[in-house]
Amino acid sequence: MGKYVYYFGSGQTEGKADMKNLLGGKGANLAEMANLNVPVPPGFTITTESSVEYYGHGETLWDELKNEVMGNLEKLEKSMGIKFGDNNNPLLVSVRSGARVSMPGMMDTILNLGLNDDAVKGMADITSNPRLAYDSYRRFIQMFSDVAMGVDGSLFEHALESIKKKNGYKIDTELTVEDLKKLVEEYKAIYKKEQGQEFPQDPMEQLWAAIEAVFKSWNTKRAVHYRKLHGIPDTWGTAVNVQAMVFGNMGDDSATGVCFTRDPATGENVFFGEYLINAQGEDVVAGIRTPQPINKSKKKNENEISLEEAMPKAYAQLVEIYKRLEKHYRDMQDLEFTIQKGTLFMLQTRTGKRTAQAAVKIAVDMVDEGLISKEEAVLRVAPDQLDQLLHPMIDPDAEMNVIAAGLPASPGAAVGKVVFDAEHAFEEAEKGEDVILVRMETSPEDIKGMAAANGILTVRGGMTSHAAVVARGMGKCCVSGAEAINLSYQKKAFEVNGTTVKEGEWITLNGSTGEVMLGKVPTMDPVLAGDFGKLMEWADAFRTIGVRTNADTPHDAKVAREFGAQGIGLCRTEHMFFEGDRIRAVREMILSEEESGRRKALAQIEPMQTEDFVGIFEAMEDLPVTIRLLDPPLHEFVPHEKEQQEAMARQMNVSVEKIREKVDQLSEFNPMLGHRGVRLGITFPEIYEMQARAILRAACLVQKKGKKVYPEIMIPLVGTKPEFDIMREMVDRVAQEIFATENVKVGYTVGTMIEIPRACLIADKIAEKAEFFSFGTNDLTQMTFGYSRDDAGKFLKEYVDKKILPRDPFQALDQEGVGEMVEIGIERGRKERPELKIGICGEHGGEPSSVEFCHRAGMNYVSCSPYRVPVARLAAAHAALKEKK
Amino acid sequence: MGKYVYYFGSGQTEGKADMKNLLGGKGANLAEMANLNVPVPPGFTITTESSVEYYGHGETLWDELKNEVMGNLEKLEKSMGIKFGDNNNPLLVSVRSGARVSMPGMMDTILNLGLNDDAVKGMADITSNPRLAYDSYRRFIQMFSDVAMGVDGSLFEHALESIKKKNGYKIDTELTVEDLKKLVEEYKAIYKKEQGQEFPQDPMEQLWAAIEAVFKSWNTKRAVHYRKLHGIPDTWGTAVNVQAMVFGNMGDDSATGVCFTRDPATGENVFFGEYLINAQGEDVVAGIRTPQPINKSKKKNENEISLEEAMPKAYAQLVEIYKRLEKHYRDMQDLEFTIQKGTLFMLQTRTGKRTAQAAVKIAVDMVDEGLISKEEAVLRVAPDQLDQLLHPMIDPDAEMNVIAAGLPASPGAAVGKVVFDAEHAFEEAEKGEDVILVRMETSPEDIKGMAAANGILTVRGGMTSHAAVVARGMGKCCVSGAEAINLSYQKKAFEVNGTTVKEGEWITLNGSTGEVMLGKVPTMDPVLAGDFGKLMEWADAFRTIGVRTNADTPHDAKVAREFGAQGIGLCRTEHMFFEGDRIRAVREMILSEEESGRRKALAQIEPMQTEDFVGIFEAMEDLPVTIRLLDPPLHEFVPHEKEQQEAMARQMNVSVEKIREKVDQLSEFNPMLGHRGVRLGITFPEIYEMQARAILRAACLVQKKGKKVYPEIMIPLVGTKPEFDIMREMVDRVAQEIFATENVKVGYTVGTMIEIPRACLIADKIAEKAEFFSFGTNDLTQMTFGYSRDDAGKFLKEYVDKKILPRDPFQALDQEGVGEMVEIGIERGRKERPELKIGICGEHGGEPSSVEFCHRAGMNYVSCSPYRVPVARLAAAHAALKEKK
Repeated sequence: MGKYVYYFGSGQTEGKADMKNLLGGKGANLAEMANLNVPVPPGFTITTESSVEYYGHGETLWDELKNEVMGNLEKLEKSMGIKFGDNNNPLLVSVRSGARVSMPGMMDTILNLGLNDDAVKGMADITSNPRLAYDSYRRFIQMFSDVAMGVDGSLFEHALESIKKKNGYKIDTELTVEDLKKLVEEYKAIYKKEQGQEFPQDPMEQLWAAIEAVFKSWNTKRAVHYRKLHGIPDTWGTAVNVQAMVFGNMGDDSATGVCFTRDPATGENVFFGEYLINAQGEDVVAGIRTPQPINKSKKKNENEISLEEAMPKAYAQLVEIYKRLEKHYRDMQDLEFTIQKGTLFMLQTRTGKRTAQAAVKIAVDMVDEGLISKEEAVLRVAPDQLDQLLHPMIDPDAEMNVIAAGLPASPGAAVGKVVFDAEHAFEEAEKGEDVILVRMETSPEDIKGMAAANGILTVRGGMTSHAAVVARGMGKCCVSGAEAINLSYQKKAFEVNGTTVKEGEWITLNGSTGEVMLGKVPTMDPVLAGDFGKLMEWADAFRTIGVRTNADTPHDAKVAREFGAQGIGLCRTEHMFFEGDRIRAVREMILSEEESGRRKALAQIEPMQTEDFVGIFEAMEDLPVTIRLLDPPLHEFVPHEKEQQEAMARQMNVSVEKIREKVDQLSEFNPMLGHRGVRLGITFPEIYEMQARAILRAACLVQKKGKKVYPEIMIPLVGTKPEFDIMREMVDRVAQEIFATENVKVGYTVGTMIEIPRACLIADKIAEKAEFFSFGTNDLTQMTFGYSRDDAGKFLKEYVDKKILPRDPFQALDQEGVGEMVEIGIERGRKERPELKIGICGEHGGEPSSVEFCHRAGMNYVSCSPYRVPVARLAAAHAALKEKK
Repeated sequence: MGKYVYYFGSGQTEGKADMKNLLGGKGANLAEMANLNVPVPPGFTITTESSVEYYGHGETLWDELKNEVMGNLEKLEKSMGIKFGDNNNPLLVSVRSGARVSMPGMMDTILNLGLNDDAVKGMADITSNPRLAYDSYRRFIQMFSDVAMGVDGSLFEHALESIKKKNGYKIDTELTVEDLKKLVEEYKAIYKKEQGQEFPQDPMEQLWAAIEAVFKSWNTKRAVHYRKLHGIPDTWGTAVNVQAMVFGNMGDDSATGVCFTRDPATGENVFFGEYLINAQGEDVVAGIRTPQPINKSKKKNENEISLEEAMPKAYAQLVEIYKRLEKHYRDMQDLEFTIQKGTLFMLQTRTGKRTAQAAVKIAVDMVDEGLISKEEAVLRVAPDQLDQLLHPMIDPDAEMNVIAAGLPASPGAAVGKVVFDAEHAFEEAEKGEDVILVRMETSPEDIKGMAAANGILTVRGGMTSHAAVVARGMGKCCVSGAEAINLSYQKKAFEVNGTTVKEGEWITLNGSTGEVMLGKVPTMDPVLAGDFGKLMEWADAFRTIGVRTNADTPHDAKVAREFGAQGIGLCRTEHMFFEGDRIRAVREMILSEEESGRRKALAQIEPMQTEDFVGIFEAMEDLPVTIRLLDPPLHEFVPHEKEQQEAMARQMNVSVEKIREKVDQLSEFNPMLGHRGVRLGITFPEIYEMQARAILRAACLVQKKGKKVYPEIMIPLVGTKPEFDIMREMVDRVAQEIFATENVKVGYTVGTMIEIPRACLIADKIAEKAEFFSFGTNDLTQMTFGYSRDDAGKFLKEYVDKKILPRDPFQALDQEGVGEMVEIGIERGRKERPELKIGICGEHGGEPSSVEFCHRAGMNYVSCSPYRVPVARLAAAHAALKEKK
């Protein structure tokens, strides 16, 4: 089965950086550092393949592997000049896991392996440092017991605490050698009690157990969960790194630390890190002693002592090494080091994690420094990260009282007073109050209140519920589906986990995490640096797919244009039926039993809707605007609550019974699959006709002002060829009428939203008359899966947890199923009409993996909410660059 | 453009029977009769293609056509020895339409064409029968004006009536020659007033106008509507038959009549028909004089005079001809004849329409007579017709007061007292009352009441609404979606078109037409003749696809078995959660927040459900039984009305708030796309586990009794591979446990319902572990189209009317869209697992065109409600025989 173990260090290194898949990230980088003559304690790496094979061997180590480990151990002994298991001068090793990609906190580490009751004495003698020896032994027993054997770590913590308490110590370093010896005995007793046998004294037995523990840690619940979250295949496995120990705790000439080659928070090109004198690595992480800054310039006060001052020689060497490593790896590095009696050892180098802001700055800086190409810079920033840059954020240092958690439906942070009804939210906001609109769910009637509120919280609904979709469109913070909340409109209060929040009380939402906090939590507005614009410019140069926006108002259109949108891919028209007095006319229309009555009512709305379109066309001058004709079922325009029905009856001067009857008649079992979209256009052609007239007249008016308009009229929910053909004929007829009246001609196209599985199948037939397709992947996902996006929250989380689905298909396009429907639609549509313009206007248009899919599928553009436009632009560039590779 | 006109008769016939597409049914049969030397008045037929071309010529006659007509007219003049337009001895012609298939009443006829003010005198002289001449002229003016020129026919009727009234006449024949002359003048005056010009005196002008009138009649509203109803393409067109007139009204030696070669009502092999002495054809149809029976044996009393007695010679000739024609056409014929002065002329022969009963008897008799083959016999009976034979029918002679019309949701007739709630329906039925359950819509809670009622009427819902599906399954009459009804549960009454019907009043439903009648309308139970069994036996021998049934109870299973079902294709298990005390346990389960509580509640249901399955397996001994695990969302099991919630709270000893909270929590925006099917199995595995245990234990118990069982466990609503795999693993585990406990092994298979578009796409992956697929085309139609079957009634009718859809896709499988999804599923499934067993269990399984599709698609079986089993068997035979051709 080939080679299981690769040696590194002491001039005999076998691996290198590009062997990450085999050696894991840590192992490959240790080998690479050794190759670069960076001082690394020697050791060897057991391959990731071995950990997978381990499960094939029934979770036991096998002879070939063992033999290779023994051989490499001998090599290590030779290069170190001391022997593993030599009680007089023992070679100690660390055992660490290391998977292909960094999985922080997932895998555990064992240090000081090789110690036993005799070797500890030898170590004490040879180092003349019994404190070090017994402290190392104590730590080893604890780590080995906990990590390798599964003994509850808190038992050891209790023993340590009680000895400290007894002696009145505050910190571990106050422990005397005698204390440590006692502790070793206590730890061994704990081990015996828990495991039913003595603590293993044979170093080889310790080593085998530690190796198996690393292999096994690949399948702990935590690790499996992390992989699921990050889409890491179970088959990758983890490597095991066995490395000679070096000690940062051998006295005041020793130290240990972590550092970043640039500031991971801001991206600034300054060396940045922390260290501790006379400490082992875990002490830095544990936070018992306060670490000190690496360099002088980062000192916060005079009491701090930087490594630069304390150990200038080691510091100079560290600086030389970090620069070399960053240059070599061509990216910001996260380093771990130990200084043993003045000698510097590098224990790890890896690509450093960073904030969105830092990612942008580092990428742009490195291009300026000539370190990386623009392509690389663009690929260095994860599109999803950009979201952080575009919204206000909760101050990370703020104290928070989280009372509930829902879905992170629309990112950002919002602070405001709780309001339970949209009208009231609007009124309060008019008075200048900051409000958060809290609803069971939202409906189009609530739009005005949603727009007025700082943020929206709903008890029900998923990531693509009405509230979520509208909020993202507005770039407004939203937490949806906070199911634990018990909301009573009547009591004007909600209760959650024992806390009651009344109308008018302050809450804070974190739309990026889904958290709901009591009170006002401080937020901060991140600043878009000039680097951001530069990076986006490069991204635009690389991408080949267009990016449009979903925008319903001139304001949204302007915002999106500033974010770089190249047109509107979806302008919904339903909100135009709610504004101001229009809803009255809409309801008049709905109550009319005759077409003539409906036409009369629609005539009142037409001039207003024309004005709306004029505004949008002007905001989008020179760019295409896709306008979707009315989509929602009519029952969304009538009130469902008694009081509102009574108000409507009074206003319209009809009986409440008539209203109730109409509402009943309009109500549907499954509105999602009901009388909406083009089905309305077929049964009430006067509605679509009015909209077509308003759009085309608005286009004429704007063109007369000398501005270029490109209206694209979109028929929603088409599932049969005649539906489209009838509507196309109507639009063409209306266009001729308008052009005659207005005495001007405007170029326009007519297309459809492909959002029904059947439409994908008959795409060729639809394309005979349709000039463009826009895939409505929200609805297409609902119908392809048979999931209602408003209800699926009940089981989708469990589906993702149980790996039935890799991700929520309403967040990331399901490429296997929905994606194939889209591909069928594109293939058939283009077969009939090769020049067919194709886009996507579902929520997926701003999600990176989905954008990549759209690019590969050959779409002309993606369209997303204004605040996702930069994300889509960057994702589109990634897609193009990845394809080029 | 080839040949437009074909001559027939006088030994010069150009057409024949198999030229129906070109000459229309009537024209081809006239030619064929002429070929057979049956006495036919000569004439010619203008092809169907001409009528289509007519529209291409801008609705004008063109020269080539006119020339051919003139040529054939000359030929006709020559063979008759008289001339068209000869005022002394005019040749008169009839002009009739004749499409490819018989379209009764759709096309109008003009007789006596060629008469004018002079020719009428010539005719009077030459026939010495001025009465005949003026009566013919009067009739001609009326028919020409009405049919060719669109003058309102009632104007002529008024004139006729007023002259009769003035003279105190009762019947037309009392009119004197002078009266007729006056009438002619009045008719001409009407024509002039309406048309603004004189009645055309030029026979050629009359002829061209008549021909155009026939062409135009192809596109009258009535004709278009009929074609839509019967799926006849608009492009077929109609032929025009111009034929020399013969007169049945030349005196007492003349007559006219219609007859059938066998009894069209019973199928009995006896000559059957009616005639009138001294009359023209329309007089027989008009019903002014009472027609007399053709043959002596059919005389109802002594006053009647049969043709057999009145004109024995002509009768004998007619008998000889009818026998010859039936033998020639090898099917029962519908004949029209005229006897002119003792000479018999045949005017038409065509395949006679017949009742279902007659169709079966004639087909079987003709096989016995050696006239047709068994294949032909099977093909002679339309599968849809069988439905008539399997349900009680409204007495066709009964008087009815139709107060409303809904959808013909489940065929048959039902009479009963109106009841508005299921519980009450059950109670009344227990007392022996006949009841009709009237609901806004039904839900699973109503099953008991539905089973108890004679029929079901719902205000909402389509052909596949809950009420419709359940009723068809029960073979119970149902009218659904009678939207005009205003129902008030509170007032215990409904109002429709001004009529109010209160609880306890009698109504009658016709589930075959959708009519609702006030009061008790007499019904009749058709008897299944032995011929039926014979025909079905032949059908079974020809078909290659299996026919199973959808049955949920041992009773339904037995009924279906008697109808020839070869197994159960769909046994729904939800009703088992409602019966008796089980619903209490089900609700206990639903209220439990913990798995342990749910398991406890399910344990109460398990033994009862086991008993259910024992009953079904016993009823279906030796045959496969596909059992679907729980499908509906849990909210169907909790009450939604306040009183019932309160009752439940008392019964369960919990607060009403808790119940209401749970109901709210379970409620869904789109239940159809909600938390149901396998999604329940994933989130509450204990439910499916209990069901699997009950099924497998029942199978063991029945097998122990020495009976063969073939359980097929079906997982509903699968859309991803893991959903199925997880459930399959659970079933296999449970099976091992049960087999160990019961100490016996039973063969079983596990498969899935393919009802989600995504499942079709990933059918190969699902088939890795699934042993069978059953296409649930109800849901697949809903999702492929995005139509909710409970709501689509709002627009589907209009969609069919506007030809957007050829038929309601919930009635006949949409082969273009849903059909392709099915084909994709079959192809991919069989690619992975060639032996995959595939069936259909949607409502389409009993609809003939859908059965044919399933046959072509290569399914192993169709499954339908018990009462549709014979329909499916026959349709399957048709499919196989058509394919063989």
